[in-house]
Amino acid sequence: MKPYKELDKEELLALKAELDRKYKEYQDMGLKLDMSRGKPSAEQLDLSMGMMDVLNSSTDLKCEEGIDCRNYGCLDGIQEAKELLAAIMEVPTENIIIYGNSSLNVMFDTVSRSMTHGVMGHTPWCKLDRVKFLCPSPGYDRHFTITEYFGIEMIAVPMTPEGPDMDMVEKLVSEDDAIKGIWCVPKYSNPQGITYSDETVRRFARLKPAAEDFRIYWDNAYTVHHLYDDKQDHLIEILEECEKAGNPDMVYKFSSTSKITFPGSGVAAIAASKNNLVEIRKALTVQTIGHDKLNQLRHVRFFKNLDGITAHMKKHADIMRPKFEAVLDILDRELSGLEIGSWIKPRGGYFISFDSMDGCAKDIVKKAKEAGVVMTGAGATYPYGKDPHDSNIRIAPSYPTLEEIVTAAELFTLCVKLSSVEKLLADMK
Amino acid sequence: MKPYKELDKEELLALKAELDRKYKEYQDMGLKLDMSRGKPSAEQLDLSMGMMDVLNSSTDLKCEEGIDCRNYGCLDGIQEAKELLAAIMEVPTENIIIYGNSSLNVMFDTVSRSMTHGVMGHTPWCKLDRVKFLCPSPGYDRHFTITEYFGIEMIAVPMTPEGPDMDMVEKLVSEDDAIKGIWCVPKYSNPQGITYSDETVRRFARLKPAAEDFRIYWDNAYTVHHLYDDKQDHLIEILEECEKAGNPDMVYKFSSTSKITFPGSGVAAIAASKNNLVEIRKALTVQTIGHDKLNQLRHVRFFKNLDGITAHMKKHADIMRPKFEAVLDILDRELSGLEIGSWIKPRGGYFISFDSMDGCAKDIVKKAKEAGVVMTGAGATYPYGKDPHDSNIRIAPSYPTLEEIVTAAELFTLCVKLSSVEKLLADMK
Repeated sequence: MKPYKELDKEELLALKAELDRKYKEYQDMGLKLDMSRGKPSAEQLDLSMGMMDVLNSSTDLKCEEGIDCRNYGCLDGIQEAKELLAAIMEVPTENIIIYGNSSLNVMFDTVSRSMTHGVMGHTPWCKLDRVKFLCPSPGYDRHFTITEYFGIEMIAVPMTPEGPDMDMVEKLVSEDDAIKGIWCVPKYSNPQGITYSDETVRRFARLKPAAEDFRIYWDNAYTVHHLYDDKQDHLIEILEECEKAGNPDMVYKFSSTSKITFPGSGVAAIAASKNNLVEIRKALTVQTIGHDKLNQLRHVRFFKNLDGITAHMKKHADIMRPKFEAVLDILDRELSGLEIGSWIKPRGGYFISFDSMDGCAKDIVKKAKEAGVVMTGAGATYPYGKDPHDSNIRIAPSYPTLEEIVTAAELFTLCVKLSSVEKLLADMK
Repeated sequence: MKPYKELDKEELLALKAELDRKYKEYQDMGLKLDMSRGKPSAEQLDLSMGMMDVLNSSTDLKCEEGIDCRNYGCLDGIQEAKELLAAIMEVPTENIIIYGNSSLNVMFDTVSRSMTHGVMGHTPWCKLDRVKFLCPSPGYDRHFTITEYFGIEMIAVPMTPEGPDMDMVEKLVSEDDAIKGIWCVPKYSNPQGITYSDETVRRFARLKPAAEDFRIYWDNAYTVHHLYDDKQDHLIEILEECEKAGNPDMVYKFSSTSKITFPGSGVAAIAASKNNLVEIRKALTVQTIGHDKLNQLRHVRFFKNLDGITAHMKKHADIMRPKFEAVLDILDRELSGLEIGSWIKPRGGYFISFDSMDGCAKDIVKKAKEAGVVMTGAGATYPYGKDPHDSNIRIAPSYPTLEEIVTAAELFTLCVKLSSVEKLLADMK
């Protein structure tokens, strides 16, 4: 099929009529599908059901250090949970603090603490006139919501196939001491599935920020979330790189087991330099007496070690891979050569990122919704929900069944076509 | 025995020699006991072991609304957990938000949110020159630690047998719009075990604060923590009283199952007016996707309803009562009539509050420690850790065994005697 932009008005009108008819058929199907959030499917959750049995009323609920996990105490996590999360996060155990059920909450608390108490002795951000964050975009909407909530000015930085545009990051960070942070999802990024190149990570580690309290918010949410055994991305370890570059305190690394076990009931952690951890513990000791140690113990007893995690993630991949491939096959089959959209084939993570013709994303998402398929809101992948090109759409294939995914993806490509034709016709006027 | 202050120098010296000898005997015993924190004993924790079995790999993990508790979502808690906590907290279910494992964390977050975002549209506290809290004292050290951490000025308010000195509270709150809150443990208070009288609660509800963003921080930690079946304190419900008094938004009520099930792995909640909850949810939706719903479900399946809680708390009381009575008996036996200390017999809660002669508390705690019994640091029950009379000591009898409690309490009374004699002798010089 030839590119849509080469079609003349008559051809476009004929095409639109046919697409309208097909779209109507979908509307009549009464679909109710959700491709909006990176939620594991029930089948994936079933993989962790064994975790519900490892602790019971006849189990020894003491951790290796002999602490009764039922009682108060153990502020920063039980040792064996630190070891497990350290292995997942590829850092030494002493660089870990274990948190509650959500790394999002840890990131929120980190920004909140910086607002009220500053970072390692520096002025609390709430006392400053302006605080800014760099936001590689498209990116994770919930990151942007946190910074927006705290009134932090967000500056979008374009993504490249290697990660954020590092020329821009280096320039901005070195020139403006109001820039206090950057949000990163460095591996199988949300939503593009891009893994930062070695050079990108090293340029991050070598940053010379104008603000001494600048921190890289390194949300390594998908570190073990591969889709393939043989084709896996590798991300070099940022804490070590920062240390080597003489910037040991410049990064906070976040992760959790949310998309490994149960999203509502996982274990989250932060990894950072000892100086950072000393400061974080000072706040933590005021905030809580300790997180849920039984749930930490439950995770460790279930997985035992990183090998347990790796074997488990292969099972996740076996469920996720066909869904990703189904979507990608349909995008290929329906849209290749039409020049009305582009997409990236990820090797892991939870999303496929689609870029439509400029000015079509909102309309595509609206059309999909009106035929019963909910996508992530267009624009959500940009700061303030404003995609300057109105082109990026995040596709989340994990939650629906394979059969539903096929239907949803087919409808989606139809919406892309329809919206593109309408745009081209409108542009002719 | 006659009061120590009626003894002459010679009698005091003879007494001191005898007490020194006994104290040395304790030191030689190599004790290692902890009466410092309100931690349940292992025997109490065993009462909840059945909770470890209610969810397993063959259990239906959907809540009543049909939500899969393993997955993301359900920001403010599953309905049946709201119902259970609402019953414990004596408020309508719609006034509840369920949190994570710790009410301390909820209180911290509430103050933190007020710092960065203000209360219901009012100026964020971090933008104000001065923010003050009233601190009924003696009180809970971790409350004071939160306000101190945020640089909030703390004003101690004396406690009476009816609760805080309400004349003082009313006067201060109505005159000074920098006063934004008051910390209360209204039932079986920490450390005195005092329950606020009906009149005190009503005077709270009728407060006319100068600051519209003034809130009562009502930490109802011990609402079902009675020691007796027949002698129970009753606290009237503050949300309802505030509503009746035309101050519906003036109170945040906190509670948790920490000292009902497992302190590290309980379920916490906040209860407040709908206006307050709307605001809290706005922050919560940025902070997290939801708390641990499986743990919520675990609690509900184990207890079923308030009757389950009540029956369970009787078992706790059966373990706690003998420990409290042992301490109280020893205080009576060893110290009655000496006029060197006073104490309150609580009907519930976790503590016995002891007041020594002025200027002796730090020394008594030090002496106990040097003979192997750790008490809560003297002064901890006052803002900034500064007890103006150096007289209040919090005794926490829950954690050690009954046998250990007896030894610890006997040593404690010996330290009280010794410290008092030394003080009286020093005052003679």
